[in-house]
Amino acid sequence: MAKAKITFTSGLQFVGEADSGHAVVMDGEEKSGGRNSGPRPMELLLLGLGGCTGMDVVSILRKKREPVIGLEVNVNGIMAEDYPHKYTQMEIEYVVKGKGVTEGGVKRAIELSMEKYCSVKATLEGAAKIGWSCRIVEE
Amino acid sequence: MAKAKITFTSGLQFVGEADSGHAVVMDGEEKSGGRNSGPRPMELLLLGLGGCTGMDVVSILRKKREPVIGLEVNVNGIMAEDYPHKYTQMEIEYVVKGKGVTEGGVKRAIELSMEKYCSVKATLEGAAKIGWSCRIVEE
Repeated sequence: MAKAKITFTSGLQFVGEADSGHAVVMDGEEKSGGRNSGPRPMELLLLGLGGCTGMDVVSILRKKREPVIGLEVNVNGIMAEDYPHKYTQMEIEYVVKGKGVTEGGVKRAIELSMEKYCSVKATLEGAAKIGWSCRIVEE
Repeated sequence: MAKAKITFTSGLQFVGEADSGHAVVMDGEEKSGGRNSGPRPMELLLLGLGGCTGMDVVSILRKKREPVIGLEVNVNGIMAEDYPHKYTQMEIEYVVKGKGVTEGGVKRAIELSMEKYCSVKATLEGAAKIGWSCRIVEE
């Protein structure tokens, strides 16, 4: 079982700590009574999605000996207009950097992450439709 | 639309940045090729859940003039045994601190968060069954 403790400090600031022992500050925006000292909780879902699938894609490309030297994962999320404003749609753009990286290898790595390995994607797709695109930058 | 950019650095380390401008480092555990320099992406979902509902509960209790002086939110997550190991169940324990805080007020605040306001809960419950409990500590 994964465990996390999220502790209120002041204003709307919370410090969260999970099993790995790393702490993340979260805060609300100023117009809501926060001090904007950390990311919003909803932002952590987008960051977690990009980080989880990014780790998969880098690992798979390395195993396939694709000469990847960089990866940016851009994640856009659309929320429902009505409360509770859940995410209903997410789009992931993978920008893979490396001279000689193959398009087929990149697409297969992303498909493996999306369909088989990415735990965050598998959790979030219960609420949101998740799509993706990719491009390779030879630099 | 909410946007996030998650950038690979080295090993399995990524730095994610969302609209608020705050950056979060994510990393894998050492046995997976990471350096454990930041939380796992899946941990961010638990932290986001605790932070989101925690902000709701603190805000609502303040509006109701309940004398809350502290809040800890403990979140446990159970993942499926099979790949992709999505969350299937989450349990939230709220520990509210404050002399004279009423049980009815606390429960109503949590119900409002769970049923109406918490965007993270509304997103994650697409995959995971989410339960909660609470206790009040007079200190």
